[in-house]
Amino acid sequence: MSNMEKMELHQPEELLQPGERLDDLCCGGFRIIQDPENFCFGMDAVLLANFTEKTDGRIIDLGTGNGVIPLLLCAKGRGRDYTGLELMPGPYDRARRSVILNGAEDSITMLQGDIRKVKELFSPGSFQTVVSNPPYISGGSGLMNANREKCVARHEIEVTLPEICRAAAYLLPEKGSFCMVHKPFRLPEIFRLLGENGLEPKRMRLVQPKKDKAPNMVLIEAVKGAGPELRVLPALVIYDEEGQYTPEAKASYGG
Amino acid sequence: MSNMEKMELHQPEELLQPGERLDDLCCGGFRIIQDPENFCFGMDAVLLANFTEKTDGRIIDLGTGNGVIPLLLCAKGRGRDYTGLELMPGPYDRARRSVILNGAEDSITMLQGDIRKVKELFSPGSFQTVVSNPPYISGGSGLMNANREKCVARHEIEVTLPEICRAAAYLLPEKGSFCMVHKPFRLPEIFRLLGENGLEPKRMRLVQPKKDKAPNMVLIEAVKGAGPELRVLPALVIYDEEGQYTPEAKASYGG
Repeated sequence: MSNMEKMELHQPEELLQPGERLDDLCCGGFRIIQDPENFCFGMDAVLLANFTEKTDGRIIDLGTGNGVIPLLLCAKGRGRDYTGLELMPGPYDRARRSVILNGAEDSITMLQGDIRKVKELFSPGSFQTVVSNPPYISGGSGLMNANREKCVARHEIEVTLPEICRAAAYLLPEKGSFCMVHKPFRLPEIFRLLGENGLEPKRMRLVQPKKDKAPNMVLIEAVKGAGPELRVLPALVIYDEEGQYTPEAKASYGG
Repeated sequence: MSNMEKMELHQPEELLQPGERLDDLCCGGFRIIQDPENFCFGMDAVLLANFTEKTDGRIIDLGTGNGVIPLLLCAKGRGRDYTGLELMPGPYDRARRSVILNGAEDSITMLQGDIRKVKELFSPGSFQTVVSNPPYISGGSGLMNANREKCVARHEIEVTLPEICRAAAYLLPEKGSFCMVHKPFRLPEIFRLLGENGLEPKRMRLVQPKKDKAPNMVLIEAVKGAGPELRVLPALVIYDEEGQYTPEAKASYGG
């Protein structure tokens, strides 16, 4: 059954709940259900999906939120199949319905569960690639949003970076790849935690809003059990001097 | 006695040895004695001097070679006084003569000695800032140059990165600053070694030959005993699309 036939079985109207909206992912015709009152995906998720290299193995996204990363990876054909793990019931349910909406049930599995309990959910080395767009802000620091869903997505309340690195190391076989987007100011800690979990940083790219602006995101790939030697890519610049997307940033959407 | 009067006491001819040449540092009228048959300074040294922030304390350069970094820091007035430590007799002697040539004996001290033995040379916490442009290539890897001086400058033969980090930690007081230029591919190891020596990475800048070329140098400042939080600066791009220095790269020379 083609995606088109499946989509005809599920009209958007019957999958959307009050207040939710349907956004175009500009990629393979995929769409995503989002709730503008809650956490919506940003450019970081789009860049992470783009940064993740093609594999013939299985890919899991830890803390998938609305499921944008598995949807994008599926649209781009980056893996054999895709799993999204999400703790919070709201985003999990939207992710699950987005999979149905796109007729992607054969390729994408959304699971409600806790990153801290991956050992109860999966065998060791179950995935060739682990991806994550985790909360950026450590424990108690920064302003807290009153919205619980946004809070959990942004702050290390339900899961911390050490826990995510430990889960990734458990889920990967030797030479398996862990791709993450994070904040540059935490880079020394990120490298340390990866190293402590046997995940060697192998590829890194800083993302700058403009050519003369400090980077506000970093994309990192670490490989389990690899030898040292980091490949640092040229900075990815998002906007040109006129405030328009640079060709490379534009290419991250679509394709 | 002014620099001009001192320079008149030492004509370049009497300080230069056969085969050596005099290069303009394009900064405060300073010049440097180099031997084109041996190791000559590169852009990395110039960028490191520029990256080093002004202090009212003392500055030491570990593995100073021809002494280019203390000469540049002195020309720019970045510290109270400057020490260059160099093991190899050839570059040490050229560095010593360059100080005389510039009439900078009151500000710059060149010492022949071993970074691994700093405890025998200095008291702990003797310098507010430690800088180093160390050999980039680990132990046995890479092609070895038959010239011993070039070899020692490029390969970790006489001193390794762990030894340099340990020396820097010893020489700095709490909140003292360690500035280094190195290769991006060793970044995870650099952060780990800094951390193991109580030196927290606080400022970092990648240097790209062109805007779409991978960085080939990284400038790092670590502060002894500081809390975590790395400030990552925009990538420094050296050449524009026409192959000319960018305004910022040009500003690194001079000033």
